[in-house]
Amino acid sequence: MRASADAPPNRLEGVTSPLHHWIVTIVCDDRPGIVHAVTGAIVEAQGNITELQQFSGLESGRFFLRLQTETATDHGGLLAALQPVIESYGMECRVDRVGRPLRTLVLVSKAAHCLNDLLFRQRSGQLPVQIPLVLGNHPDLAELASFYDVPFESRPVTTAEEKTAFEERVLRAVEEHDIELVVLARYMQILSPELCAALEGRIINIHHSFLPGFKGANPYRQAHQRGVKLIGATAHFVTSDLDEGPIIEQNVVRVDHSRSPAELVAIGQDEESRTLSQAVTWFAEDRVLLDGQRTIIFQ
Amino acid sequence: MRASADAPPNRLEGVTSPLHHWIVTIVCDDRPGIVHAVTGAIVEAQGNITELQQFSGLESGRFFLRLQTETATDHGGLLAALQPVIESYGMECRVDRVGRPLRTLVLVSKAAHCLNDLLFRQRSGQLPVQIPLVLGNHPDLAELASFYDVPFESRPVTTAEEKTAFEERVLRAVEEHDIELVVLARYMQILSPELCAALEGRIINIHHSFLPGFKGANPYRQAHQRGVKLIGATAHFVTSDLDEGPIIEQNVVRVDHSRSPAELVAIGQDEESRTLSQAVTWFAEDRVLLDGQRTIIFQ
Amino acid sequence: MRASADAPPNRLEGVTSPLHHWIVTIVCDDRPGIVHAVTGAIVEAQGNITELQQFSGLESGRFFLRLQTETATDHGGLLAALQPVIESYGMECRVDRVGRPLRTLVLVSKAAHCLNDLLFRQRSGQLPVQIPLVLGNHPDLAELASFYDVPFESRPVTTAEEKTAFEERVLRAVEEHDIELVVLARYMQILSPELCAALEGRIINIHHSFLPGFKGANPYRQAHQRGVKLIGATAHFVTSDLDEGPIIEQNVVRVDHSRSPAELVAIGQDEESRTLSQAVTWFAEDRVLLDGQRTIIFQ
Amino acid sequence: MRASADAPPNRLEGVTSPLHHWIVTIVCDDRPGIVHAVTGAIVEAQGNITELQQFSGLESGRFFLRLQTETATDHGGLLAALQPVIESYGMECRVDRVGRPLRTLVLVSKAAHCLNDLLFRQRSGQLPVQIPLVLGNHPDLAELASFYDVPFESRPVTTAEEKTAFEERVLRAVEEHDIELVVLARYMQILSPELCAALEGRIINIHHSFLPGFKGANPYRQAHQRGVKLIGATAHFVTSDLDEGPIIEQNVVRVDHSRSPAELVAIGQDEESRTLSQAVTWFAEDRVLLDGQRTIIFQ
Repeated sequence: MRASADAPPNRLEGVTSPLHHWIVTIVCDDRPGIVHAVTGAIVEAQGNITELQQFSGLESGRFFLRLQTETATDHGGLLAALQPVIESYGMECRVDRVGRPLRTLVLVSKAAHCLNDLLFRQRSGQLPVQIPLVLGNHPDLAELASFYDVPFESRPVTTAEEKTAFEERVLRAVEEHDIELVVLARYMQILSPELCAALEGRIINIHHSFLPGFKGANPYRQAHQRGVKLIGATAHFVTSDLDEGPIIEQNVVRVDHSRSPAELVAIGQDEESRTLSQAVTWFAEDRVLLDGQRTIIFQ
Repeated sequence: MRASADAPPNRLEGVTSPLHHWIVTIVCDDRPGIVHAVTGAIVEAQGNITELQQFSGLESGRFFLRLQTETATDHGGLLAALQPVIESYGMECRVDRVGRPLRTLVLVSKAAHCLNDLLFRQRSGQLPVQIPLVLGNHPDLAELASFYDVPFESRPVTTAEEKTAFEERVLRAVEEHDIELVVLARYMQILSPELCAALEGRIINIHHSFLPGFKGANPYRQAHQRGVKLIGATAHFVTSDLDEGPIIEQNVVRVDHSRSPAELVAIGQDEESRTLSQAVTWFAEDRVLLDGQRTIIFQ
Repeated sequence: MRASADAPPNRLEGVTSPLHHWIVTIVCDDRPGIVHAVTGAIVEAQGNITELQQFSGLESGRFFLRLQTETATDHGGLLAALQPVIESYGMECRVDRVGRPLRTLVLVSKAAHCLNDLLFRQRSGQLPVQIPLVLGNHPDLAELASFYDVPFESRPVTTAEEKTAFEERVLRAVEEHDIELVVLARYMQILSPELCAALEGRIINIHHSFLPGFKGANPYRQAHQRGVKLIGATAHFVTSDLDEGPIIEQNVVRVDHSRSPAELVAIGQDEESRTLSQAVTWFAEDRVLLDGQRTIIFQ
Repeated sequence: MRASADAPPNRLEGVTSPLHHWIVTIVCDDRPGIVHAVTGAIVEAQGNITELQQFSGLESGRFFLRLQTETATDHGGLLAALQPVIESYGMECRVDRVGRPLRTLVLVSKAAHCLNDLLFRQRSGQLPVQIPLVLGNHPDLAELASFYDVPFESRPVTTAEEKTAFEERVLRAVEEHDIELVVLARYMQILSPELCAALEGRIINIHHSFLPGFKGANPYRQAHQRGVKLIGATAHFVTSDLDEGPIIEQNVVRVDHSRSPAELVAIGQDEESRTLSQAVTWFAEDRVLLDGQRTIIFQ
């Protein structure tokens, strides 16, 4: 959650100007002294750290850090204080304002449950995103988007030409709206490798199965035939390797032999909605970092 | 649970002789009138039904029924009453005494957690099995078996000849002790197709993964590399098609990026123990029926 | 689920007329022969049983049965066949058509999450209810109801007179619309004992806590102060004994020390929504029977 | 887990002496600069931080930190580097070797499941404790302790004098064995306020219910009568206020109406065992800190 109401009280004595709340994420090669150096920059920026998590990737040798801080200085002041550390350690560093809504493009087909969940949570303040556009390859969800006052566009994707046109529209929308995250909310088309590459690290899919369980089409029928006792959903980054991108979140729910394939679908949809919304929330709060094929989730 | 203490009070008026408690399971082609016919036989045997579950397999057209009954007549009397119905409907029928311990053979290697859980539950009365022998391909668990007063035998399985000898010992033990269930409690050897066939429908394995997720060797390392957020265990019938037998029970537990492969192993072992013990309990209580590749679990 | 698409194929040979699908629920004193007698009536009505569950209350001595059947005869024919059995055993018996939407009145205040979940599921075919009216003590949710084309009425409840008027409106709505179930979807007013009594057994509340945990006001703050590691929600029948009615469904979710009371509220709302929708679904499918203070849930 | 095998590789260039692995926990009033100051001391001690978690208690204004570090210096060297920071900030600070087994005294009555779980995990290397003594008010578990080569003593507690004598024996054992943690593994006696006070913050109980649900005696019968759908267990610190101490861990499992009170007990015992073992593991790894009535768990 980014609710500033939950931020700790000002512990910076003598500071009377309004405080700024920041999220700082850092990725670099692991070596001693990083935390000390970064926190030194925060002290210099007159900051108080309210949350800090770190992780060392054993195999990759990479170091990951996320902290939240309240500072008397503004964005420029904080960056200036961090700059020497960033350079000295060769860090990838991102500084973001706590609670800033992430500009998010949503792609859909006909199924409403994931879009409904995203929009309801966005409106009720639980999901820190701002959605300038929903794009569909079917017109079915226009009314739902309209209820939440979100622009909606649809165009068919039945030929190769239409697919190319749709993907060009996606990239144009990403540019026009300065999109930071693309969400496939049960968008039932395989993306071209080019589009996957163009959006790498900022496109999330919800897979209607517990990966790496049943991949490909109709996982609920596969699950039914094998008589599984748990079904689930997986939110993951999209890569050109279908259903194999880094996993962000997974959930399962118990089922028994009496469930028909149609019932498994209905049960699975609940898991899909909440798993996708959770993944988007974490991404929007800068809690998802990549260590090769693995995700680091700083909850 | 088979604890007779939990059985309902005698509702058979006028019957003063001690009651017998039975489990009846029936499998046959689905058609109208089955339940009426079976329950008529129970009435004829002066029985009161205390538990009844049924299921119709949509695709197979098979009908499954499990009931518990308290009767004034004994085993012969109950069977005699059921016999005409069994013949008329072409039923597979099994009548078992509630709470009778199932004669169970356990196969192990070096890992203690599943055997420890089975033996502890068996002694404390939670697991209705009787274990006349534990067979291992390593001597490591001899002391544990001894603590629970269960005979233990080990012989190495490093050559083809030794493997054949071990499997012959298994089949001999099955015959000697009139074994009804063989449990692979982390037995780390692939069984021959002949042994799988000989024990079909009465041999259960615990797979150290959430099937059909990571099959084959070292699933925890695979899970770590993919950065999964849930790990689990699957208890399933053994068939010659490795890790593909009908699923009896599955459990998962949440993990995060900070867990090493070694920690995933430790966490997974808890799930393995409880998943296997649950599957064995249900089997021992005649709650597991087969509908092709799917299991019907009458909890 | 009531989806008739999931019903088993017609197994009634020679019957060419369209089949009727029924739910039959029965409650009576426990004694031998009940299942045989009931299933005999089904056979007489040319019925095939597709689902059957029973339970004997150990302490109450009451017997509970729910079955689904496809019959060649219509409602009158089925009732006629059952009538002698009902009389002979002194049964409470209910015969309902599979999939018939339950006439449901929803009461709300300001919180939208439960109403949104109910309406979304109702529209998408997952929740077999028909909602002729939503009544609120605040106007906030008018727009949401309107999006789903459900009539909405609100009137303030700040004085004793207004409370009486509101409750009279509830009873009038129950009569006008022949309401079968009243759902308190986060309706934040205590009902009068008279209203509780008038609606006994057909009014369900969602409690924003894991009962019997934190009762009364502000349970999330209480949970925060005690540092609980799990929070949850309970759907229960409303009785005049506040928060003590028979429990229908409960769910929990894991939390940790870092969650503020505001975040616990947000997390808890997800559990409230899905717990309430589950309870309403089971009630609408005649799966909820009462054994004194306990519920029998035939899933 | 403390398994040193999982520790990251040495990232301290030029250091050839064997590294020491430490856990440092710190509690103090919250103010800016703490993390920078502490990590500065680690740098000074030639240390590399491999794990770091912090938390600011919003209401208490207290700051909590736990880190793991590998250092070239020994215990004395690390303490010397930390000392000025500790004094400057008025910190409570604890420095412990990673993986050091915690000296733990276990109190039992007749129920074996929790003791069995603790001893099995201890032997298999999952639970970093060393148990010099098990004390019981019944002799029943002597054989189990003996199997694991743990000394066992029992003495009856049926009179006030015997209770006083038992508690004196506890305190003497704490002194003799330099005990760091006392575990009530289903010890069925209420402790005197004096003993609770003497062991404050280092005595853990497993409550056979989901607190604050059913307190006091026979919670499973209470749960059965209310028809709960989830039962659970709570591990908590013992205070003189019965069942009200700070909560360390909680688990629940789903049950239905068909479970008898005896079955609920059996199901609950699994949750008790794993919940208690989890709480003890976290305590032994210095992951449990106290913020008033709340626990901070640094997983």
